[in-house]
Amino acid sequence: MSLRNEMLQLAREAKQAGRVMANLSSAVKNDLLLRMATALEQNTPALVEANEHDLAAAREQGMAPAMIDRLVLNEERIKAMADGLREVAALPDPVGEITGMWRRPNGIQVGRMRIPLGVIGIVYESRPNVTADAAGLCLKSGNAVILRGGSEAIHSNSAIGKILKQALAQMNLPAAALQVVATTDRGAILELLKLEDEIDLIIPRGGEGLIRFVSENSRIPVIKHYKGVCHVFVDASADFEMAERICLNSKVQRPGVCNAMETLLVHKDIAETFIPRIVTAMRQAGVEIRGCEITREFAPEVMPATEDDWFAEYLDLILAVRVVDNQKDATDHINRYGSLHTETIVTSDYAHSQRFLREINSSVVMVNASTRFSDGNQLGLGAEIGISTTKLHSFGPMGLEDLTTRKFIVLGDGQIRA
Amino acid sequence: MSLRNEMLQLAREAKQAGRVMANLSSAVKNDLLLRMATALEQNTPALVEANEHDLAAAREQGMAPAMIDRLVLNEERIKAMADGLREVAALPDPVGEITGMWRRPNGIQVGRMRIPLGVIGIVYESRPNVTADAAGLCLKSGNAVILRGGSEAIHSNSAIGKILKQALAQMNLPAAALQVVATTDRGAILELLKLEDEIDLIIPRGGEGLIRFVSENSRIPVIKHYKGVCHVFVDASADFEMAERICLNSKVQRPGVCNAMETLLVHKDIAETFIPRIVTAMRQAGVEIRGCEITREFAPEVMPATEDDWFAEYLDLILAVRVVDNQKDATDHINRYGSLHTETIVTSDYAHSQRFLREINSSVVMVNASTRFSDGNQLGLGAEIGISTTKLHSFGPMGLEDLTTRKFIVLGDGQIRA
Repeated sequence: MSLRNEMLQLAREAKQAGRVMANLSSAVKNDLLLRMATALEQNTPALVEANEHDLAAAREQGMAPAMIDRLVLNEERIKAMADGLREVAALPDPVGEITGMWRRPNGIQVGRMRIPLGVIGIVYESRPNVTADAAGLCLKSGNAVILRGGSEAIHSNSAIGKILKQALAQMNLPAAALQVVATTDRGAILELLKLEDEIDLIIPRGGEGLIRFVSENSRIPVIKHYKGVCHVFVDASADFEMAERICLNSKVQRPGVCNAMETLLVHKDIAETFIPRIVTAMRQAGVEIRGCEITREFAPEVMPATEDDWFAEYLDLILAVRVVDNQKDATDHINRYGSLHTETIVTSDYAHSQRFLREINSSVVMVNASTRFSDGNQLGLGAEIGISTTKLHSFGPMGLEDLTTRKFIVLGDGQIRA
Repeated sequence: MSLRNEMLQLAREAKQAGRVMANLSSAVKNDLLLRMATALEQNTPALVEANEHDLAAAREQGMAPAMIDRLVLNEERIKAMADGLREVAALPDPVGEITGMWRRPNGIQVGRMRIPLGVIGIVYESRPNVTADAAGLCLKSGNAVILRGGSEAIHSNSAIGKILKQALAQMNLPAAALQVVATTDRGAILELLKLEDEIDLIIPRGGEGLIRFVSENSRIPVIKHYKGVCHVFVDASADFEMAERICLNSKVQRPGVCNAMETLLVHKDIAETFIPRIVTAMRQAGVEIRGCEITREFAPEVMPATEDDWFAEYLDLILAVRVVDNQKDATDHINRYGSLHTETIVTSDYAHSQRFLREINSSVVMVNASTRFSDGNQLGLGAEIGISTTKLHSFGPMGLEDLTTRKFIVLGDGQIRA
C-alpha cells in the first residue's frame, strides 16, 4: 500500500473509532486510563528493552548526551508515565458540559454542549513519555489520537503504543482510537497533514524546525508556539526584595524552557538602585547580562545588548536588560519584541497592575508572580497538552478543555420560523 | 509600490490600529457604531450613486438578474445596514469579561480574560451590506478589520468604507482600524493570506469556490463552512402534525440558504402513514421529491434517489427522502452524508431526544424545532459574522464572542516556583 493510502486508512479508522470514544461515559474512560497505567508498569522490562534499541542507535549516530538522556526510559520514568495517566483519569471530564442555556422569545431553549474535537494528530520529537501523556489527554477528552513521534524513539514509542492499545482491546474499545505511526518516513507526516476531512487538529511538539514544517504544510488547523520571549517589567513602585526574587526565579529556576524570562525591563526611576542589585544577584547565579546603555551606566561591567538581543530566546543563563521611561514604553517593547507567551509586572501600584493586565495581550499576563507559573499544571489545568501563542481556539497553556469544542443544542416543542 | 508591499503596509497599519481598538471602552465603541449608522443614512445619495457604477458594469457584463438584485443599494437597504450597526451597538461587549477565576494552593489567583483577536480579514462576494455588517461586528469586539469584497461591488464597498472611516476620524480613532482593499486584483487576496504575523483570522463569505480558494491558500487560520446538508429525522414516536410543520418550514420557508433541510429521514415504523402525508404536503408546496426504494413503495410517484442525492445541497425546492430502520441508522446516515451543519429530530420520546443530542455532533443539534433556527440572530447571538462547520475555535453560527479569544491572567503577591 502506498504511504498515502496507508495514512488515509489509518486516519479513517481513527475517525470511526473517535465516534465511539465520543460517547463513552467518564467512568469508562477513567477505567481505560487506569488500566493503561497498570499495563505500562507491568511491562517495564519490555519497554526498557525496546528503549535499548533506540539508545543503541542514538549512540551509534553520535547523538549528544543531553539528547540521549531525553530518550531514556527506565523504571522511574515509566512509573512517572503511569502516574501521569492516573492524574489525567482523576481530572474532571469536560465532555457533555452544557455551558449556558437560554430561552428565546419563541420558547426554544438554546445552549452549548462541550464535545470532543474528533481526531487529534500529535507530531513530536525525542521524549517517548509524550506518547503516553498525549494519548491519555486525547482519550480522556473523548478523541481518537494519531501519534507520530521522531524516528530516534520509534522502538520506544511503538512499544508504549502497543501496550496502551492492549488496554483498549481488553475493554472491547476500538484499538484504532490510538494510532502510533510506525514508519519513520517523514513523508508520512506530509500525508497526514493533508487529511483535513479525517483529522480535526494537529499539535506539533518539538523544536522550531519541526513546528514550522508542520505549520507550513498542514491543511488541518495547527495549534503551536514557536518561542517564548518572556518579559518581567519591574515598575518604579516595585518592592525590590520581591522583584529580585521573581526575576531570579523567572530566569534561573529552569532557564532552558519557554516560560523562562529572557528580557528584564526596569523603570528608569529605580534604575540607579535596582540595576546594580539585580545585576549582582544574576551574576552570582551565573547569568550573563546584556544591557542597554542606561543599564551599563549603572552596571558598567555589563555587555552591550544589540537589537538581536531583544528578540532572543536564549534558553540559557543569559538575560537582556533594558531601562524604560515608563509603562507605555515597557508595553511598546513587549508588543514589538515579544512572542505573546508570558509577561509579568512587579508593582505595588494598583492602577499600574490593572493597566498591565488590560493592555498586554500575551497568552499569560501576570502581576507579582514568576513567569515560571505559565504552565498547565501550575495554572491548575491539571495537565498540559501544549501551549498556544496563536489566538484561535486556544491561547496559552492547553488542558483537556482545549481538546474539545462546543456544539449548539436547541430544545423546542414544535417551533417553526415565521 | 508592489501589491505585496501594499497589502503588508495595510495589514501592519491595521495591526497597530487594532491595539488602540482593543483598549477602547464599550461606550466609545458603541458611540462609534451609532455615528457610522447615522453617516450611512446621511450619505444615502452618494452611496446610491456609487452603487450605480457597479450596477451599470454588472448589466454590461450580462450578470443574472438575481445576482444584480443582490448588488443593489437603495434607501431601504441603506437603512437596514444602519439599523444593523445600531443593533450591534446595543449588544453586550464581550471584551474584558473574566470567565472564571480560581485560587491555586500557593495563593496565586488564575483567571481567563476575554480579549479581541487583533486583525480580522473578511473576504466576501456580492452583497455590499457585508461591508458595514462585518465592520460593525469586528470593531465592536475591539478588532481591526480588513475587508476585501468582490470586484463586482468595488464602488459600493469603497463608498461604504469611506463613510465608515469618517466616523473613526471624527472620534480621533485610527482610520486604519477599518481597511477596504481598493484593488480588484485577486492577487491581493493571495498576498493578504500570507500575512500570518499581521492578520489573526480570515473569514471567507461566499460561494464554495471562493471558500476553497481562501482555505487552500491561507497561512492564516480560516473559519469557514462549505455547505449545509441539513437533516430532519422523524422518529416513530413523532407527532405527525408537528413533524409535517417542521419539515415544511425547514424545506420551503427559504430553500436557498444553508440551514434549509436537504434530506428527510423517516423511521420505518411510521413510513406507511407518514410518507404519503409528507410527500403530498411537500408536492403541494412545490417540492420535488427523490426517494429511497421504501419511500417509493408508499409514494410510487416519487423519483428514485441516487447516491449523489444523499450528498446534495440542493438550495432549491428539491428534497431527498430516506426510510431508516432505527435511530442508529439515522445517525449513521447523518455521519456519512452530513456536513456537520444542522440536524433535527422530531420525537416525543425522551430517551431518543437525549440520545440524538448526545450522539449527533453537528454544529447545531435540535429537538422538535425547524432547522431554519440555525442562525446567529435566531439562536440569540445578536448578530452573525458567519457560520463554522469546522470545529476549531467556533462551531456553528458565530457572534461577537467568536471574534475574541481568552488570555490567562495571574494575580500573585510575590510567588515563585519551587
